[in-house]
Amino acid sequence: MEFILRIDVGAKGGPTWRKEPLGGYAGNGGRGMTSLIVSKEVPPLCHPLGARNKLVIAPGLLSGTSASMSGRISIGCKSPLTNGIKESNSGGQPGQMLARLGYAAIIIEGKPEGHDLYKIVINKDEVKIDIDNSLKMLGNYDVVDKMKNEYGDKISTISIGPAGEMKMSAASIACTDMELRPTRHAGRGGTGAVMGSKGVKVIVLDDTGKSMRTPKDPEKFKEANKIFVKGLKKHPVTGEALPTYGTNVLTNIINESGGFPTNNFKSGKFSGASKISGESEVELQTKRGGLATHGCHRGCVIQCSGIYNDKQGNFLTKQPEYETVWAHGANCGIDDLDTIAMLDRLDDDFGLDTIEMGAAIAVAMEAGLAKFGDGEAAINFIKEVGKGTPLGRILGNGAAITAKAYGVERAPVVKGQAMPAYDPRAIKGIGVTYATSTMGADHTSGYAIATNILKVGGDVDPLKTEGQVDLSRNLQIATAAIDSTGMCLFIAFAVLDQPETFQALIDLLNAFYGLTLTADDVTALGKSILKMERKFNTDAGFTAKHDRLPEYFYTEAFPPHNVTFDIKDEDLDQLYNW
Amino acid sequence: MEFILRIDVGAKGGPTWRKEPLGGYAGNGGRGMTSLIVSKEVPPLCHPLGARNKLVIAPGLLSGTSASMSGRISIGCKSPLTNGIKESNSGGQPGQMLARLGYAAIIIEGKPEGHDLYKIVINKDEVKIDIDNSLKMLGNYDVVDKMKNEYGDKISTISIGPAGEMKMSAASIACTDMELRPTRHAGRGGTGAVMGSKGVKVIVLDDTGKSMRTPKDPEKFKEANKIFVKGLKKHPVTGEALPTYGTNVLTNIINESGGFPTNNFKSGKFSGASKISGESEVELQTKRGGLATHGCHRGCVIQCSGIYNDKQGNFLTKQPEYETVWAHGANCGIDDLDTIAMLDRLDDDFGLDTIEMGAAIAVAMEAGLAKFGDGEAAINFIKEVGKGTPLGRILGNGAAITAKAYGVERAPVVKGQAMPAYDPRAIKGIGVTYATSTMGADHTSGYAIATNILKVGGDVDPLKTEGQVDLSRNLQIATAAIDSTGMCLFIAFAVLDQPETFQALIDLLNAFYGLTLTADDVTALGKSILKMERKFNTDAGFTAKHDRLPEYFYTEAFPPHNVTFDIKDEDLDQLYNW
Repeated sequence: MEFILRIDVGAKGGPTWRKEPLGGYAGNGGRGMTSLIVSKEVPPLCHPLGARNKLVIAPGLLSGTSASMSGRISIGCKSPLTNGIKESNSGGQPGQMLARLGYAAIIIEGKPEGHDLYKIVINKDEVKIDIDNSLKMLGNYDVVDKMKNEYGDKISTISIGPAGEMKMSAASIACTDMELRPTRHAGRGGTGAVMGSKGVKVIVLDDTGKSMRTPKDPEKFKEANKIFVKGLKKHPVTGEALPTYGTNVLTNIINESGGFPTNNFKSGKFSGASKISGESEVELQTKRGGLATHGCHRGCVIQCSGIYNDKQGNFLTKQPEYETVWAHGANCGIDDLDTIAMLDRLDDDFGLDTIEMGAAIAVAMEAGLAKFGDGEAAINFIKEVGKGTPLGRILGNGAAITAKAYGVERAPVVKGQAMPAYDPRAIKGIGVTYATSTMGADHTSGYAIATNILKVGGDVDPLKTEGQVDLSRNLQIATAAIDSTGMCLFIAFAVLDQPETFQALIDLLNAFYGLTLTADDVTALGKSILKMERKFNTDAGFTAKHDRLPEYFYTEAFPPHNVTFDIKDEDLDQLYNW
Repeated sequence: MEFILRIDVGAKGGPTWRKEPLGGYAGNGGRGMTSLIVSKEVPPLCHPLGARNKLVIAPGLLSGTSASMSGRISIGCKSPLTNGIKESNSGGQPGQMLARLGYAAIIIEGKPEGHDLYKIVINKDEVKIDIDNSLKMLGNYDVVDKMKNEYGDKISTISIGPAGEMKMSAASIACTDMELRPTRHAGRGGTGAVMGSKGVKVIVLDDTGKSMRTPKDPEKFKEANKIFVKGLKKHPVTGEALPTYGTNVLTNIINESGGFPTNNFKSGKFSGASKISGESEVELQTKRGGLATHGCHRGCVIQCSGIYNDKQGNFLTKQPEYETVWAHGANCGIDDLDTIAMLDRLDDDFGLDTIEMGAAIAVAMEAGLAKFGDGEAAINFIKEVGKGTPLGRILGNGAAITAKAYGVERAPVVKGQAMPAYDPRAIKGIGVTYATSTMGADHTSGYAIATNILKVGGDVDPLKTEGQVDLSRNLQIATAAIDSTGMCLFIAFAVLDQPETFQALIDLLNAFYGLTLTADDVTALGKSILKMERKFNTDAGFTAKHDRLPEYFYTEAFPPHNVTFDIKDEDLDQLYNW
């Protein structure tokens, strides 16, 4: 990863590219890299879809190495959904390939004049940028098929569907998995719309002829990885729950806790939970000849994904993840896995964030456009988005815009971004993260569920106010650091509970780069990333007033616990006070 | 004006009301009153459509007296369009009537449980609040007709159309004129949506049995009014231009200056300007038996309104005002007065802000939904809004939401509110007002056109940066004060140029209330209102970063002068530094 690949799509005469040395960006990866570049190069008050926004794609520090779990790729920009800084990350193969191709980041800048669509092909010898208008309005599955036909099956791709082309704020960027399917997404914050505004439909990566990145100290690296994997395998979450049931193991757990938002965050228990739980999902997948245990990228030892076949036993989509099962399921009152899987497939194909879409549809249901539980209506809604009808334009821009269009007060968003699958009233730690994250409402940026519910990294009562701000702060700092390594965030379960696994992670970095980092350095890295992101947001006009949940979370009691969000403003304002 | 009428539409068992003494609110009127009540009683972070927002309706300090021009009524709330404080004011008869009925303000608070629509009737004896679901989704014209049938023609009404019921952010509140037609609107900022969220469809005012409010010093008052009227009559703007051609006298003038935004703010000259100018409008109206010179309320001596008849000579709408002619005309490339008049009629009937709708349609045209200049498409767009189709929901929520839905970068908005009929690049004083006003982009809150173009109150070159911040500041302060008197803002032309007319205004207040105010007190009042409004906005999350124009005004040269907006941020930040 010796270079930055800088592509100017706004250059006169068509896009240009150049390989740049890392310069001041050296030593950064993943979220640390994207947030640094966005902070340095993007004016905070620029229009997210304008020439001065940039799309930054960066593998993590350990991506492309033989370290397990290091397949994440970070995509950063100013978000059209939140109007703040955004890092959205994805699994799949592109992270590894981009790293092996030697690029620590791709920066796409400028804005093309016309309406041509570009295809960017990157291999060990060259970078090629071509107009390919035959790709216009194709779904991600068709795009990938075309690329496979043109470039063979050793590639991986980063692409957008129609939603990104239409510059919808819920548009995702798809990354291909091991089977070369566009099932892994940088879902949140509308990164797909920014890619669409740059006129880039697909980036094809081919690392043929390049090999694994080699550590400075191969022996130490190998040893650290061994300990690291051992730690993951012995932890009950990463070694047992996730491999067995996937992320959807959470449906029964969160429903049991009373924090499973149902019917647009109206209550915390869903009567249909058992029908859509991980347990049911695994049973169904297995029966239909799918896979209940599967990785999203090579080198994964957790294997939380799977293959979901339709009734005829044909591939429909990857195993819908917990957040998707919740968003399109409980939050819309839908208790049918096939409906949810179809919605997942359509979202992946159109290039849409499943969380944002589930939230938007639930708001539309509250507005009376369909009844809660009406799966057919939900499928039609997503199809409207794919077609770009006026209703599709509303829904495809997310829950906040849907609420605005229909005069609905109950929009579960922070900084414009929809909340994920945990009610902040019943699980207050995650509420602190939603309120204060630089990313808008986001579970991954400080996954307090770990400690509030799963009792990983300690035990903080989800219903009490005590300790939640400290919990969220520590998790947000740790997450920002992990998001820079290219490691899947799920390693955090083991890292939080097992000092030796945490040390193994640090040893991996040290062995690879020849460094002597300590735990304190990791914390310092996390803090510096958060500080940088928060500064961007401040310069974009955000204040402490934006670090709040929507009004109704403070006033509307949430059953079954009948609680409101009661973390004090002044306590929330302490989050960045470290 | 001894009482506040407080109506709680959220009370259990149905709406309640009570007459309250003025208490701490005594001595305030119009915008001074609405902004004070909103500041004191509305939590800045509340949802604009929620129970804790309040709709405040207040006549001015001189409303209901025999002072000429005192017919304005202020309507305040937290705006669903800007999410900041809002005062939107209207002409027509309700201001005078409400004042004579003794109410310094109506405060509508709470939120009803069900979906019933309420009708509030206020006369000298009582306040009656009834459910009247027969009014559901009626246009303002039908509502007023029904009220006339029920309560006779001595009434005036304050009502919302379907747009307000659907809680659209471009929804206005209609006030009836002298002919009992709903042609005068508190247009800006979505006040209609707030009224809709309170379930109130119409307020019927009947001041039968009440007489003109009497001054403490009737002789002095009469004398001051005489001087005041004389000043207005002798000023070229208020005595000649406005009475002859109405507000639309500006089309030729602003077009000539090169600051007449055409085709969604693409250029400053419209080839069809002469076809839609005030001169052409007056000729057409006269030919068709309409009226070219007419007041919007009793006691008006400027008479800038008129009656616009259709081709058959039947009433179609009031004389479309300059802002409407621009918004639905030049900004959409439409050069046909009948089309513009039809759009004006539909806006008034559905209860929509013509400025916001013209801006939204122009953005839709830029998105490719219709061609610039397509009047039939524009009429259909507004009909979609009236019907509440998905496209109508997009457009009816204004230019910013329309741009968001269609991924259009060029949305001419500040704080979510569309810019009126003057390009801020070619007329920089108004650009300062757009950027810094507490109201979002708004011409009336600091009408720099007066001095930049009409050379009233001095002469500041519209194309230079010098002096614009001082100009806007002084106008914003003066305007806040004038908006509190109930006086039509057009008095400002004479007041700015003629010291004796300014003194006459002060004398009117002093004679009426037995006060000894000086010019300094008027300035102090204006400052205190702005300070209060700005504090509300700060507490709602606004910072200096929101006191900026959209990015493209800084980067895209505007023909024919080929200028950008180049007032420095640090100069804008001096606006509230007095």
